[in-house]
Amino acid sequence: MSAMPPARQEGPLALICGGGSLPLAVADFVSARGRQVLLFPLRGVARPEDYAQRPHTWIRLAKFGVFARAARAAGCHELVLIGSLVRPAFWQIRFDLTTLKLLPRIAAAYRGGDDHLLSSGARLIEEQGFRVLGAHEVAPEILVPEGPLGHVQVGERDRADIALGLDYLHATGPFDVGQAVVVAGRHVLAVEAAEGTDQMLERIAALRASGHIRASTVGGVLVKAPKRGQDRRFDLPSIGPQTVEGIVRAGLAGIAVAAGETIVAEPSLLVQAADRAKIFVVGVPSGTER
Amino acid sequence: MSAMPPARQEGPLALICGGGSLPLAVADFVSARGRQVLLFPLRGVARPEDYAQRPHTWIRLAKFGVFARAARAAGCHELVLIGSLVRPAFWQIRFDLTTLKLLPRIAAAYRGGDDHLLSSGARLIEEQGFRVLGAHEVAPEILVPEGPLGHVQVGERDRADIALGLDYLHATGPFDVGQAVVVAGRHVLAVEAAEGTDQMLERIAALRASGHIRASTVGGVLVKAPKRGQDRRFDLPSIGPQTVEGIVRAGLAGIAVAAGETIVAEPSLLVQAADRAKIFVVGVPSGTER
Repeated sequence: MSAMPPARQEGPLALICGGGSLPLAVADFVSARGRQVLLFPLRGVARPEDYAQRPHTWIRLAKFGVFARAARAAGCHELVLIGSLVRPAFWQIRFDLTTLKLLPRIAAAYRGGDDHLLSSGARLIEEQGFRVLGAHEVAPEILVPEGPLGHVQVGERDRADIALGLDYLHATGPFDVGQAVVVAGRHVLAVEAAEGTDQMLERIAALRASGHIRASTVGGVLVKAPKRGQDRRFDLPSIGPQTVEGIVRAGLAGIAVAAGETIVAEPSLLVQAADRAKIFVVGVPSGTER
Repeated sequence: MSAMPPARQEGPLALICGGGSLPLAVADFVSARGRQVLLFPLRGVARPEDYAQRPHTWIRLAKFGVFARAARAAGCHELVLIGSLVRPAFWQIRFDLTTLKLLPRIAAAYRGGDDHLLSSGARLIEEQGFRVLGAHEVAPEILVPEGPLGHVQVGERDRADIALGLDYLHATGPFDVGQAVVVAGRHVLAVEAAEGTDQMLERIAALRASGHIRASTVGGVLVKAPKRGQDRRFDLPSIGPQTVEGIVRAGLAGIAVAAGETIVAEPSLLVQAADRAKIFVVGVPSGTER
């Protein structure tokens, strides 16, 4: 039984910022709506130069007390966790007193998959009086809409591959594994698990170079969709310009992601890169809604 | 609608031999039962030195006419396809006349997954008057039995990982993808697709070396099982001594395979290697039978 989170209320929004440019994009979208944003970049994860020009407070993973005191002092009751975060080795984390008390339950969360870990973390934070929101709830602009993102259109052959990929992700949703597959010629070539999307795409490039994917396999699609039952506040699938680079190296035709459920980082750079490489990028109705 | 295969009948058995030592092991098991075996090693795949001491007829992929004439002349009506075979690039195959007539249907088979390709190939062969058997039907000795193969026992934690792995393979069976996953701490770390088991294990080793798998993840199991609906005559999952080497490099605790549905190559070498490395190898009731 988890405690009920406090009712939604306005006031400053705390952003706990992992790596990459997405936290700052979210901050700008929220600020543009007239809401004050407090930035809490994570030491060792967020890049200091990205935050040099903005007011911010450095925090550390598992030093939740530091964050909680600063946020409460500013009258802040809602927070968003956003940006890339490598799952840390348990023994590398230094816990403060607030966090230490929660240790047995954090350890329990560590035994599950990534989704389990994040949901458990959010529950612990909410018990401290904060409401945890998804970045897309405060900044829906970061979600991929339905339809093509660039100028390259999806072909008939690609549609069949996309449908198969969505079916596969739908079937494996309950397992808290990956959120992505590569499908070409109605054949699942790769399934993402612990390695992440970028490494999966490198694998396709290597299989192609070594002749393990037959030369006649043209096209092929990276398909991403959230897991069924996933806590949508975190870890929605995401794409960015580096995804297009991976697609080009893998020799694939395009990217299909669940519309309204996938985060896009640096969308204008992504579209530029996709158009230049003649790669399609499309938001499709997700298999998780069927 | 495929033609009914001819009824089972004795007489010499033709073995179409791919790479590795398994074809010769099957030949020995069949010979020990008193049945004559005709060896047809595949040029460019089987190693010439392995066949130097035995009567044999070299054949080529897609030169089915050559094989069919030699086999019929010897009064042979049954054949087994056994051994490793890299899926060839379509344009690299030189077809003879018999095979050329079947080309449109071979091309159609190439568009599906591996299982589809093999089943389609078998159907074409059966229409030429041959019955295609699985290697394990003529030599059940090559199948992994239920229970441990070596001296290392399966732990409680491993059993939970094995169950999760079997569940995952069961859920993805309809997709004609891989036959193997790596599970550790009830977390699916890797899913096999086009890359094959050995490369999947190398990925785990690399993820561990780069810190992407947390140091606290001890144990972990490679789980292999046939796909649901798979044509059991070919492409049953298989393990051999090189699988143990991959397990050691990946830092896993052991191997669990579907008992009675997984082929083991060089079992004595595999058990020696597993015992030496303190790796368990176990045949478990398959999820496909539940």
